[in-house]
Amino acid sequence: MIIRCSKNDLVNGINIVSKAVPAKTTMPILECILIDAAGQKINLIGNDMELGIETSIAGEIEEKGTIAIDADILSGIIRKLPEEAVEIRTEGEKVTITCNKSKFVILGKDGREFVYLPEIDKNDGINVSQFTLRDIINKTIFSISDNDSNKMMTGELMEISNGMLRVVSLDGHRISIRKSELNGSYNDRRVIIPGKTLNEISKILDGDTDKFVSIFFTDKHVLFEFNETTVVTRLIEGEYFRIDQMISSDYETHFTVNRKELLDCVDRATLLVREGDKKPIIMTIADASIQLRINTAIGSMDESIEVNKSGKDLMIGFNPKFLIDALRAIDDEEVDMYFVNSKAPCFIRDAEESYNYVVLPVNFAAAE
Amino acid sequence: MIIRCSKNDLVNGINIVSKAVPAKTTMPILECILIDAAGQKINLIGNDMELGIETSIAGEIEEKGTIAIDADILSGIIRKLPEEAVEIRTEGEKVTITCNKSKFVILGKDGREFVYLPEIDKNDGINVSQFTLRDIINKTIFSISDNDSNKMMTGELMEISNGMLRVVSLDGHRISIRKSELNGSYNDRRVIIPGKTLNEISKILDGDTDKFVSIFFTDKHVLFEFNETTVVTRLIEGEYFRIDQMISSDYETHFTVNRKELLDCVDRATLLVREGDKKPIIMTIADASIQLRINTAIGSMDESIEVNKSGKDLMIGFNPKFLIDALRAIDDEEVDMYFVNSKAPCFIRDAEESYNYVVLPVNFAAAE
Repeated sequence: MIIRCSKNDLVNGINIVSKAVPAKTTMPILECILIDAAGQKINLIGNDMELGIETSIAGEIEEKGTIAIDADILSGIIRKLPEEAVEIRTEGEKVTITCNKSKFVILGKDGREFVYLPEIDKNDGINVSQFTLRDIINKTIFSISDNDSNKMMTGELMEISNGMLRVVSLDGHRISIRKSELNGSYNDRRVIIPGKTLNEISKILDGDTDKFVSIFFTDKHVLFEFNETTVVTRLIEGEYFRIDQMISSDYETHFTVNRKELLDCVDRATLLVREGDKKPIIMTIADASIQLRINTAIGSMDESIEVNKSGKDLMIGFNPKFLIDALRAIDDEEVDMYFVNSKAPCFIRDAEESYNYVVLPVNFAAAE
Repeated sequence: MIIRCSKNDLVNGINIVSKAVPAKTTMPILECILIDAAGQKINLIGNDMELGIETSIAGEIEEKGTIAIDADILSGIIRKLPEEAVEIRTEGEKVTITCNKSKFVILGKDGREFVYLPEIDKNDGINVSQFTLRDIINKTIFSISDNDSNKMMTGELMEISNGMLRVVSLDGHRISIRKSELNGSYNDRRVIIPGKTLNEISKILDGDTDKFVSIFFTDKHVLFEFNETTVVTRLIEGEYFRIDQMISSDYETHFTVNRKELLDCVDRATLLVREGDKKPIIMTIADASIQLRINTAIGSMDESIEVNKSGKDLMIGFNPKFLIDALRAIDDEEVDMYFVNSKAPCFIRDAEESYNYVVLPVNFAAAE
């Protein structure tokens, strides 16, 4: 194989596919990036068998071929080369990388050992802007569970229904729901995508509202296609939780509050919480203000914030981290919070329910 | 004690004195910052018994007193307060911090348990710009030894002689020397300052050429005074190495090279060096160019750079890290390197010897 391309194109391509290269694996070939120049284009591929990413970069193929190169070594070398044309030439498994007067010789692995991405039929997909997909992931991903004991909770539900895209994550203490209208009409779909995949995708999406992602589904996989990149991931199998039974629009207490003011206050309260400590922040909702209190081994905090309240007075306790995560994921200046009683979940949602963050309360009487 | 000051003044003050607060200590009181408002000014003090920092901040003292507060907790709380006036009020060891509608109550410690900085006579000091002191530290500190087995190597020599300030560090493999002319005439001095102190000072110096630092010396301590801050450190006792016997201006080979080009090249070579691996980079100096080669378990690199050379041809090996550190510490576009033979140190110095970086070579024959 002999190929030539610009240093920057190579760096960009390597950055993208590296997201699918596992740090540790029992199959050393997977720690490599495959450079596949067997066809008309130079393709780079990373694959950890659950998540696979392929991207093609501009360049010239003088001699067709493939080679797998350790991702860390390849990425390290290319990153530090001068910003000029790079030539990669193989003789068997010997790889010579030349750029200007600099010449590296390293050992690669036979490209035929590498595991290519599964073939997915590109039928019946949906289109969504890169911005929307990234936004919707970033604003829900924090409430997946990182505990493998319930596999379902480590992924997000992606649901297409009635021309809406809905993404849901939950970890047993809270639920994050984001909705976005789709342009066009699509068949209904319901898949559970591993959180790791969504995390990595959100890092390589452009975040451009004018650029689109096409998403294709099979029973076992989902494929994302954008720019010159293809991401294929296995799905989590099984039936997701029945979300709609968990959310309700009834409430006894409601207030509107300046989001940043509430966020800063709860954030300050966490200073008094040592790791592993489960002290709740206690919210006392009265007519024109809410009082927030926390009391831990380190000390106590007491602060009040003006709100626009309707309904009953209420005293309710929360894990401050869960309130913070939800409030950070909202862009609105003012947020509406809805409560039923001190033992029922609180809902932070907008009128259109483009977002709905559900946070379970904590028994504060025990904590007092 | 009751004091009031702005959040920002407090944050700045805490940031400065925190540099002297030890992470772990057998004397828990030292993990605190002392707020001393017993006199006319609000002083903050951190002290790890080797390094002590005191700074005064603007503010109002309503009731005189002192209190010691855990540095992490104090810093955490103050940093997250709104940007408004902060009141700190003590009743015994109970500390109430109020800012706007936010109120924190924490436990402090009796200020009388705290260890104040030693008293130092401010006679016979020197003045140097903050910029110069910071620059001279940053450009030598990397070659102190972090190995305590030779205490002397963990510090830097600071020498005042003939109106020049000279700072030297060495770790057994290399020597870094920086000189700067002083304004004014001063008595000769020769002290060894702990590297940790210099590191922390360089972080809190303004880096302003118009602002000065006064430095005062005793047998056991050195005191730095700048802005509203006083830094006192113990000295390392003993006689420093005889540097002047180690450096010479004789040479057999000399070349001038573009600093960045050489730096980038040696930096690239380190990609092939795994941690703990001691492979040298081999420099072959010929008439109009030098060739740089490295050969490790990962692969090999070969690159040539044009230079302006005089004297004998030479082949010599170096630990690439030591070359990189020295080349990074130089601002000049072109550097001059001087060599005697493949077993003698190489000198990277300018004509005025405002800097002189000495790097010992590595036996490359064994490595080949």
